[in-house]
Amino acid sequence: MTDATPRHEDRLALRPDWQKRRVLITGGLGFIGASLAHRLVALGADVLLVDSLVPEYGGNPFNVQEIASRVRINISDIRDPYSMRHMIEGREVIFNLAGQTSHMDSMTDPFNDLEINGLAQLRLLEICRHHNPGVHIVFASTRQIYGKPDYLPVDERHRLNPVDVNGVNKVAGEHYHILYNNVYGLRSSVLRLTNTYGPRMRVKDARQTFLGVWVRAVVEGRPFEVWGGAQLRDFTYVDDAVDALLALAETDGVDGQAFNLGGDCVISLRDTAALLAEAGNSRFEIREFPADRKRIDIGDYYADDSLFRRLSGWQPRVPLAEGLRRTVAFYRDHLRHYL
Amino acid sequence: MTDATPRHEDRLALRPDWQKRRVLITGGLGFIGASLAHRLVALGADVLLVDSLVPEYGGNPFNVQEIASRVRINISDIRDPYSMRHMIEGREVIFNLAGQTSHMDSMTDPFNDLEINGLAQLRLLEICRHHNPGVHIVFASTRQIYGKPDYLPVDERHRLNPVDVNGVNKVAGEHYHILYNNVYGLRSSVLRLTNTYGPRMRVKDARQTFLGVWVRAVVEGRPFEVWGGAQLRDFTYVDDAVDALLALAETDGVDGQAFNLGGDCVISLRDTAALLAEAGNSRFEIREFPADRKRIDIGDYYADDSLFRRLSGWQPRVPLAEGLRRTVAFYRDHLRHYL
Repeated sequence: MTDATPRHEDRLALRPDWQKRRVLITGGLGFIGASLAHRLVALGADVLLVDSLVPEYGGNPFNVQEIASRVRINISDIRDPYSMRHMIEGREVIFNLAGQTSHMDSMTDPFNDLEINGLAQLRLLEICRHHNPGVHIVFASTRQIYGKPDYLPVDERHRLNPVDVNGVNKVAGEHYHILYNNVYGLRSSVLRLTNTYGPRMRVKDARQTFLGVWVRAVVEGRPFEVWGGAQLRDFTYVDDAVDALLALAETDGVDGQAFNLGGDCVISLRDTAALLAEAGNSRFEIREFPADRKRIDIGDYYADDSLFRRLSGWQPRVPLAEGLRRTVAFYRDHLRHYL
Repeated sequence: MTDATPRHEDRLALRPDWQKRRVLITGGLGFIGASLAHRLVALGADVLLVDSLVPEYGGNPFNVQEIASRVRINISDIRDPYSMRHMIEGREVIFNLAGQTSHMDSMTDPFNDLEINGLAQLRLLEICRHHNPGVHIVFASTRQIYGKPDYLPVDERHRLNPVDVNGVNKVAGEHYHILYNNVYGLRSSVLRLTNTYGPRMRVKDARQTFLGVWVRAVVEGRPFEVWGGAQLRDFTYVDDAVDALLALAETDGVDGQAFNLGGDCVISLRDTAALLAEAGNSRFEIREFPADRKRIDIGDYYADDSLFRRLSGWQPRVPLAEGLRRTVAFYRDHLRHYL
């Protein structure tokens, strides 16, 4: 092969790397963490999952029911430095996914958000520095830190202009990870996720993604509400996000850098809603944007993730329509475990 | 006058604005805070100074000795929300200068830095939001948040790439101020200071600025050490920094924005040292950069502050050589109060 970019299949062929690799996933019972855990178990990794199971967050024991006998699960909070030290020691790779993700909650309780997304991240890095300095960390960040885009698509050079407390603290979390990479020689890189969706996402409320409440309504046979509708977005199916997290950990030359992750297409909320309605044989209503959301709304957003695609060989494999069908099918079977 | 840019003299003519204005300065016994207090007292403002007098920081009662009977001084910590609520209520303008400024201390005790430069700033803004929502805040930030420049001079569009924990937390502090401006309607703007120097700066050690230890050595009749020497920098004499803080508070259309502040010239450390040596009739030695500083060194830095100059009419009035002469003269008289 003459092309310098690794093809997805070639990268997959390298995956035996994960065999017996000692991996820690913080937020491991959550939507993305648990999905990553399933994949890593299939790849033969030695997987330790940490989750606080704070009811308002994404952790759910049902998410790992099928693999519970093949992973180690530790219920504790990343804010607890004593527990975290035991979790971190001896691990080769940390997928650091634990966090407070609700934008509204970050405005009503900004200190809690700072404690989890700022202070606890700094503590985790200090523990790594002192007790596991050779560890390799992949930190999950969010496109929310860009705020209202100055230009589209948004690449990694775009200024960071967070529009909520959550965004401010996620910026700090990113900066800490990159700083500890640069100063202390930990290996650390950052993936800025956009709207991730799929099986195991929180559907009880909109704390993780507005798609959650849409999907729940579809499965419960109710019409769902779309706020606005013209806003453009990109969406990543969770299996593709898992691919991307693994790809980032597998790629050389990415340490100390932050990368955007996008989706397979750019689409308006109205068209997304239409795809979901079709997938679920349901319908939706367009509503005005509520005032308390409007003030932190960012208009259109979609990522330029070409840098990450080029370096890692990652590309999305699940089209939005297909991902939404799989998601609806999952919740038709399992909704009761998510309410 | 046909020019839309206010001339400095015209802006000064507007200064009666400050008469009886209720002003709070956090870090008010520190280097810049106390210098600002002197000016505001002269302008007839009703000045309240808050300072923690943490020994490692810049607060020093001697800094306000001459004006002690004309200001109100409250010794308390910005981390203390009960005290801060009483300080903030009823104030019209807050110059928010309190902070941990030592880059090395932020690396040895990152949590302390986060508490002061992150958490306490968020608390201050929450207090303002709930108890003084009409307040006008000027927040002092630092050029350190840009890290090692991608290009020179550094303008406000330059990406933020902090190279120490202090920089990460100062970014968060800025973002909180801008966020609370945008979301809650407080008026808040940010001034990114470069190397500020002059009478009342900390000279006991390099926690505030390396110039402090240089000046101390000069006054004590010892040669001072220059690390490296080729690095380019800009310096702001403290009276010019005070001018700039007032100008930012006086200028319309700056809310929710962050501005660079530069100096009157760009100069190497070696040439700065030569100016100081001449001012103090002293000499200096060039040394290799110590390893623990090297890893957080940023190379050359100087600001493009044309945006701030254009909007506010500010310009520096004290050339570096003159500022250094005044500084040496001050410490020849008062060094004992700063050791």
